[in-house]
Amino acid sequence: MRILMAQINSIVGGFEKNYQRMSKIISDANAVDLIVFPECALCGYPQQDLLDYPCFAKKAEYFAQKLIEAHPEKTFLFGSVEQNQESGRPMRNVALFADRGKLLHKYCKRLLPTYDVFDEDRFFEPGREALVFKFKDEKLGITICEDIWNNQVQTSLHNRYSQYPLEDCKTASLIINMSASPFESAKVAAKRSMLKGIAAQYKKPLIYVNAVGANDSLIFDGRSYLWSSNGELIQSAKAFEEELRTVDSTQTTTSENFKIRNNEVEDIYDALVLGIRDYCEKTGFRSTMIGLSGGIDSSVLACLAADALGAEQVTALMMPSRYTSKESNEDALQIAKVMQNPLHIYIIEEIYSAAVHTLEMAFKEMKPDLTEENMQSRIRGMLLMAMSNKFGYLLLTTGNKSELGVGYCTLYGDMCGGLAPLADVYKTQVYQLGREANRRWQRIPERVFTKAPTAELRENQTDQDLLPPYEELDKILKHIIEDFWSREQLLEKGFSEKTIDPVYQWLGRNEYKRYQMPLGLKVSSKAFGIGRRMPLVHHFFG
Amino acid sequence: MRILMAQINSIVGGFEKNYQRMSKIISDANAVDLIVFPECALCGYPQQDLLDYPCFAKKAEYFAQKLIEAHPEKTFLFGSVEQNQESGRPMRNVALFADRGKLLHKYCKRLLPTYDVFDEDRFFEPGREALVFKFKDEKLGITICEDIWNNQVQTSLHNRYSQYPLEDCKTASLIINMSASPFESAKVAAKRSMLKGIAAQYKKPLIYVNAVGANDSLIFDGRSYLWSSNGELIQSAKAFEEELRTVDSTQTTTSENFKIRNNEVEDIYDALVLGIRDYCEKTGFRSTMIGLSGGIDSSVLACLAADALGAEQVTALMMPSRYTSKESNEDALQIAKVMQNPLHIYIIEEIYSAAVHTLEMAFKEMKPDLTEENMQSRIRGMLLMAMSNKFGYLLLTTGNKSELGVGYCTLYGDMCGGLAPLADVYKTQVYQLGREANRRWQRIPERVFTKAPTAELRENQTDQDLLPPYEELDKILKHIIEDFWSREQLLEKGFSEKTIDPVYQWLGRNEYKRYQMPLGLKVSSKAFGIGRRMPLVHHFFG
Repeated sequence: MRILMAQINSIVGGFEKNYQRMSKIISDANAVDLIVFPECALCGYPQQDLLDYPCFAKKAEYFAQKLIEAHPEKTFLFGSVEQNQESGRPMRNVALFADRGKLLHKYCKRLLPTYDVFDEDRFFEPGREALVFKFKDEKLGITICEDIWNNQVQTSLHNRYSQYPLEDCKTASLIINMSASPFESAKVAAKRSMLKGIAAQYKKPLIYVNAVGANDSLIFDGRSYLWSSNGELIQSAKAFEEELRTVDSTQTTTSENFKIRNNEVEDIYDALVLGIRDYCEKTGFRSTMIGLSGGIDSSVLACLAADALGAEQVTALMMPSRYTSKESNEDALQIAKVMQNPLHIYIIEEIYSAAVHTLEMAFKEMKPDLTEENMQSRIRGMLLMAMSNKFGYLLLTTGNKSELGVGYCTLYGDMCGGLAPLADVYKTQVYQLGREANRRWQRIPERVFTKAPTAELRENQTDQDLLPPYEELDKILKHIIEDFWSREQLLEKGFSEKTIDPVYQWLGRNEYKRYQMPLGLKVSSKAFGIGRRMPLVHHFFG
Repeated sequence: MRILMAQINSIVGGFEKNYQRMSKIISDANAVDLIVFPECALCGYPQQDLLDYPCFAKKAEYFAQKLIEAHPEKTFLFGSVEQNQESGRPMRNVALFADRGKLLHKYCKRLLPTYDVFDEDRFFEPGREALVFKFKDEKLGITICEDIWNNQVQTSLHNRYSQYPLEDCKTASLIINMSASPFESAKVAAKRSMLKGIAAQYKKPLIYVNAVGANDSLIFDGRSYLWSSNGELIQSAKAFEEELRTVDSTQTTTSENFKIRNNEVEDIYDALVLGIRDYCEKTGFRSTMIGLSGGIDSSVLACLAADALGAEQVTALMMPSRYTSKESNEDALQIAKVMQNPLHIYIIEEIYSAAVHTLEMAFKEMKPDLTEENMQSRIRGMLLMAMSNKFGYLLLTTGNKSELGVGYCTLYGDMCGGLAPLADVYKTQVYQLGREANRRWQRIPERVFTKAPTAELRENQTDQDLLPPYEELDKILKHIIEDFWSREQLLEKGFSEKTIDPVYQWLGRNEYKRYQMPLGLKVSSKAFGIGRRMPLVHHFFG
């Protein structure tokens, strides 16, 4: 059976646009038996609380019917949402099988992820039944995303669900999985190995059609696959790009030489580029603005934004102060020069002096402290936002996961912006991304990689005045944030009290800052943001 | 049976503190058969993603055991969390019945709210069985919060759950409900009528013990009750205050003359005072800071903060510009004078001029626009944050629900702060709260109520230059935000396209601002914040 895997980029709630795109693909499809779209292709994913509005599902139902009726010659399978007509949660996450203008089969997603960024139990009533049906010379077993993740191959979800939808597809000759499965750097290889294992264990070909594109913090990486019944990878669609790829479900050997990339840094780089591009495209921003300091974070961010939108769409703002080193100025200038970014330079001294003068009476003889450091950062934030307001640029935020984790950043200062592409990337990974950026196009001066990281908010400051070396800090943060280790476990693994206790304090005490941080792009298994819902007021420290 | 309703204020994750408090209450209790604490009294509620940490539940288990063993003479029932030892979600929301040093009974909450601010399906495996057991001369039927909300008396949740835990308590002689039920202004009367109905329908006395105090955005209002089997209210504990109240479950008439308050404005006022006080107490802030403009929002906020912490703990900052009217200055001064707030006055002109001068080259001959208005607001934000940083004040944010809804506020400007007490209060309600503040203590000059609201960021500006009258705007916002009306429904109800379409646009387009707003206090059925999770990037407008 010839199947078109339609790996497309949908917009949440963009019914008209998604409909047009899908309708065109269906119309254009030639010599295929079936077209398969990703989960929720028609309505976009994740819908979040738009699902609180009954009119959202009604619109989805209207466009689904319209799509089905518009193509009386074709057969296609697509994901959407519907109102639940029975008791339970108000909605269903459905797969609709349309054949010659009619809805022939409907499947309701059975396993509803409700952890991390996922809230499906909040809205969807789970399906209770499998869908296996004969179509042409195959018996299709339909599943949606999470449905295939509770299986015998990898066991991490075993404790969460008591249903095994794959087991109920045993009578099928071909398993189809429609997904909107967000990218996480460590998930790519794990998912591939799981899909291979499923195909091999059930001795059936497996077609996996995943969404692509970014919606809010989630980046869908595509990588739709056809696996043969002996667990061989036969076809693979592109990563981080739309692709329409036709496959033959009976094919058991592949003619292609897959360059399956196993490089997390390259993946993260591509993911962030797509994340920036889609945020701009889907919100209507054409151009971005960056505060360029000559440090590694803003350098890498400038590269990512340039690769997403073109360097001419990345306006760089340098805002030196008395504490800015000659090296920083040179390095920032160098990057802007190589990339030919539009560049502005504003010295913040005049505003800073005015602010210090205005506050003179209140601060009297008190020594300068963090207050004055934050003021510099906030003046920069104000200038960046002024440019953003005046010219309609999207301000990108430079903060990385290490800084945000320990609160080594200024609320309303360097935390200003509409999107924080590096928010889920540790400082040590930012350096790796810098190398990757230079591999693609040599732009960041070598000195940016080697000089000591510093916020330059006072004389001779470096990040390591306060923080442990990033190699160590990043490990501790990852164990706490992503591995959910306790303080005890960290001690057992040899980290010293002296090092971890401040990290715990910083992490906990700065929840209020992260609560107000811009939208970040998610590339790890646990990012700050909607998937990590911590109380701001609590007394628990590991 | 004599039962002590222990309506206490727990801290999330504050095990040691909660333990001490509960242990003292148990020790001190005299001549009572049973002490009943609220849901999750030992661990605090809501725990949110602290539950991702196995060590959280382990600590809860440790302190639960310790509490049980510490009181070999007493009988008490308390709420906590545990690890789930079976398959399913990792945790349980439990009620533990301790009798003479032993755990005699354990009940697992069966109905797990997973909507609005509630995420219980994310962590908890539901219990499957009722708990009814004989204790002294009663048969107790134990329920936790949501368990009693799916009933025959009020039917709003009927479609959500297929279980009716109250039905399974039919053999009990006394129903106990332990709650951590957050305050919503319209819920007070509805809840009372529901509880009355339950007692009357099942013909059993009902003891309802609710938590009190604020954790993050949620404010628990206490108001624990004893209802008799004929549906009479026999005893009521205080609203918004801790109270230990002993009741006799067999009592069928009341000697008290309950002043059951049916005043939503007074309730909201008390709720916000408690919310501010608890945020400060639980995070360690002693003192607050407010930008006082002479408008209604900052005036009301100053009153709330003063009533929460004492007027001397509310430092007021006036920051006039060339656009600030004489009236505004007078009114702000008047409030600070009456309340004897510590007061600072800084004129923002010097900083503003420096900022305009710094940006002169970039902005060239471009006309002043929203950019310059935002700059003034951001300079004020910077000054407030500088004071907050230097002196350790908690900056309170003035923004109300109407402004936040349409984005009539400046990100990093007037949106700066750690807590936004008015974020769930519409502008029209702010005026009502102002009257209530004056009823308690005449502080706000009459002119503040009558002059036209204005941001004073340009010459002769008023809010109504751009926005519809607040009476109309607030209605529209409420229908969209709280009632989930579609655009079509609004039109049907007689609102004009000309009025509602901009509101839809503003509401949708300003999601990114609200994503970065400070923690707000929740007093309605749908507040901006953790209970309203909207995509920032989407194309759906009603």
